[in-house]
Amino acid sequence: MLKAILVIADGMADRPLKELDGKTPLEAAVKPAMNRIAENGVCGIVDPISPGIPPGSDTATLAFLGYNPMEVYSGRGALEAVGSDVEVLPGDVAFRCNFATVDKDLVVLDRRAGRISNEDASLLTRSLQEIKLKKSFDASFLFKNTVQHRAALVIRGPKLSTAVSDSDPEVNGKKILEIEPLDKRPESVRTAAIVTELMTEFQEALAEHPVNKERAKRKQPLANVVLCRGAGTIPKITPLRKLYGIKSACVAVVSLIKGVCKVAGMDVISVEGATGTPETDYLAKAKAAVQALNTQDFVFLHVKATDVASHDGNARLKTEVIGKIDRMLDYVLKNIDLGTTHLALTADHTTSCETRNHEGDPVPVAVFGPCVRRDSVKEYSERACAEGGLGRIRGPDLMHIMMNYLGRTKKFGS
Amino acid sequence: MLKAILVIADGMADRPLKELDGKTPLEAAVKPAMNRIAENGVCGIVDPISPGIPPGSDTATLAFLGYNPMEVYSGRGALEAVGSDVEVLPGDVAFRCNFATVDKDLVVLDRRAGRISNEDASLLTRSLQEIKLKKSFDASFLFKNTVQHRAALVIRGPKLSTAVSDSDPEVNGKKILEIEPLDKRPESVRTAAIVTELMTEFQEALAEHPVNKERAKRKQPLANVVLCRGAGTIPKITPLRKLYGIKSACVAVVSLIKGVCKVAGMDVISVEGATGTPETDYLAKAKAAVQALNTQDFVFLHVKATDVASHDGNARLKTEVIGKIDRMLDYVLKNIDLGTTHLALTADHTTSCETRNHEGDPVPVAVFGPCVRRDSVKEYSERACAEGGLGRIRGPDLMHIMMNYLGRTKKFGS
Repeated sequence: MLKAILVIADGMADRPLKELDGKTPLEAAVKPAMNRIAENGVCGIVDPISPGIPPGSDTATLAFLGYNPMEVYSGRGALEAVGSDVEVLPGDVAFRCNFATVDKDLVVLDRRAGRISNEDASLLTRSLQEIKLKKSFDASFLFKNTVQHRAALVIRGPKLSTAVSDSDPEVNGKKILEIEPLDKRPESVRTAAIVTELMTEFQEALAEHPVNKERAKRKQPLANVVLCRGAGTIPKITPLRKLYGIKSACVAVVSLIKGVCKVAGMDVISVEGATGTPETDYLAKAKAAVQALNTQDFVFLHVKATDVASHDGNARLKTEVIGKIDRMLDYVLKNIDLGTTHLALTADHTTSCETRNHEGDPVPVAVFGPCVRRDSVKEYSERACAEGGLGRIRGPDLMHIMMNYLGRTKKFGS
Repeated sequence: MLKAILVIADGMADRPLKELDGKTPLEAAVKPAMNRIAENGVCGIVDPISPGIPPGSDTATLAFLGYNPMEVYSGRGALEAVGSDVEVLPGDVAFRCNFATVDKDLVVLDRRAGRISNEDASLLTRSLQEIKLKKSFDASFLFKNTVQHRAALVIRGPKLSTAVSDSDPEVNGKKILEIEPLDKRPESVRTAAIVTELMTEFQEALAEHPVNKERAKRKQPLANVVLCRGAGTIPKITPLRKLYGIKSACVAVVSLIKGVCKVAGMDVISVEGATGTPETDYLAKAKAAVQALNTQDFVFLHVKATDVASHDGNARLKTEVIGKIDRMLDYVLKNIDLGTTHLALTADHTTSCETRNHEGDPVPVAVFGPCVRRDSVKEYSERACAEGGLGRIRGPDLMHIMMNYLGRTKKFGS
């Protein structure tokens, strides 16, 4: 049975950096396994969305799973909530939330409420979930804390809209924002009113809460407000199982990525020691992915660490992380059946260590396996792969190409 | 006057094959003329539909004639009927049919009724065409046998639909299938009812037919049922003449390809000795194409033999056929005016000698002629062309590129 594994290193692609003598971190890294994949495979470059457009991790992951993000993307909030095991039903509108600290003028002092502990956040959450929305709203809500200050909010009821603004100013030192409808539809006006009302009720409940009294005693920042952003609904997508007749799983730790995978109908595999940081247990992830291939047709292995180093502007660390990912890939290559398994390696987007942002530059890709037309590329990097036999493709093409190798794409015509 | 010739070898592209020491049939073949086209031309790879999606010969041919198959494709039945000189009008729904042999439980014993002779099939057809549909159906039909067991059925009347299933189980040993509407629209329900009724009437007429009595005496399989599949209508496309102001013709023998070309308004040139098999008269086809260029602006020369060898899984034969096509191209190159004529060489899809199926891998293309920006590719093959100056394009792009060289594409903007 033909199988496939897709390895995505988040934000691994970069631009030439002065501090690396004009090399990209990929070009500067020691990466024999990646080069082996390139040398034995077919290479190319990919625009996850389209040339020049910086992708989010959500839209890029949707694209690399074969979905057209321009058609199906419906905001981050719901994907992140689903990835945190919060139930989101079709029609629900979900937000990403933070417990935060504000002063009496509602200026944000700490967007993370001193990275509040899971214990404190859970106690606060229990109280907040007991609040009842006014009957006239004809709506209910779910509020769930996830890790530290992070939480998810789901609004449920008829006629809701994602066209509402954020209350989160995204930086400390600014006043929290009014939640406003982004268009004139009654659904948007109604949704903004519901969330505004709820945020006010949350503030009142938090102000008097025993947990905050304890935090004040301990000189810890109060968690006296909940900020919300990224209104979203579940994208309407057909699961991979139905599209290609495959069993699929992902090995990922980031909620957002797990959310996208769940929405695509994939099993989500948790790995002890996987943290989403440069200190993650790379080998444990590799072992979990290899093991998953025993029972799955398609496994997606996601590593976040490269993006973390990029957003910190740390090119040296990014280069080291790439070396660690290379050793992870070495394990994968040595433990899968290369006669029946296709392995694709790419990045979900370019993250520049200089701008510290996602950029719209293409990312390198290499696909190794029994069906590929091997090309003459010998190195895995942004520039070397650009000379490969795949040419320049779009994000969703990669999944279609892999499913074609597996004999899983449907013929169009006869 | 600038002219162009498009040569398509059906299913010529392939994957690296073990029995050819990891080469594709194109890489293994002796092909000096093809290499001359590549060396003097501009090369690239083409996704007839889109990356990873296996094309049918119908959708691929539509694409290579410049039409977007995702927009215009409307089923195979009508294209094949038109290609067999059966009249199909807009609104008609047409099917591909087979005379077949079934047992008393309607299990198919021979999908080809012993490859019934044209004579027997014609006699049966004459009787079937005399059947009258019930008045309440407000519809009529045309039934025409083509070659051996093959036939076309056209249903004509108001409010018909192509959303009906096939009765043909596509393999021997299975029961014939109920023809069912594929959606709930009244047109689909009505069309399924008409075709079901007609197939029952056909069965009754065939059961008692003198031809079948004679066949029974001769111990030949009875042609006691008509199987139908591939409901389709004429695609709504603008003829090439109107799009580009050109006179165009095709040299092809396969009904489906001829049908697509007719629908595009092209003249269809018949060639004695052209058979659609590896034993076809390649040189006769070349001569016909060269001669057609005297009076036409654009000639499409189609060769089926490569696909036949691929579906048989015969890599050696495919390699030989490519050699024969090369000699055909040698004749073309030596007998056209290379100062005024552009020649494009491609395959309509990849057909793998290993899987014996159409695959979604890209196909090579080379365009030779006075206007091209010659690149450094020196060999015509899947991998060599991938390094060419055309990059990776889509099926319809090739026609637009050729018509651009001929000064026939319209400026967009001013």
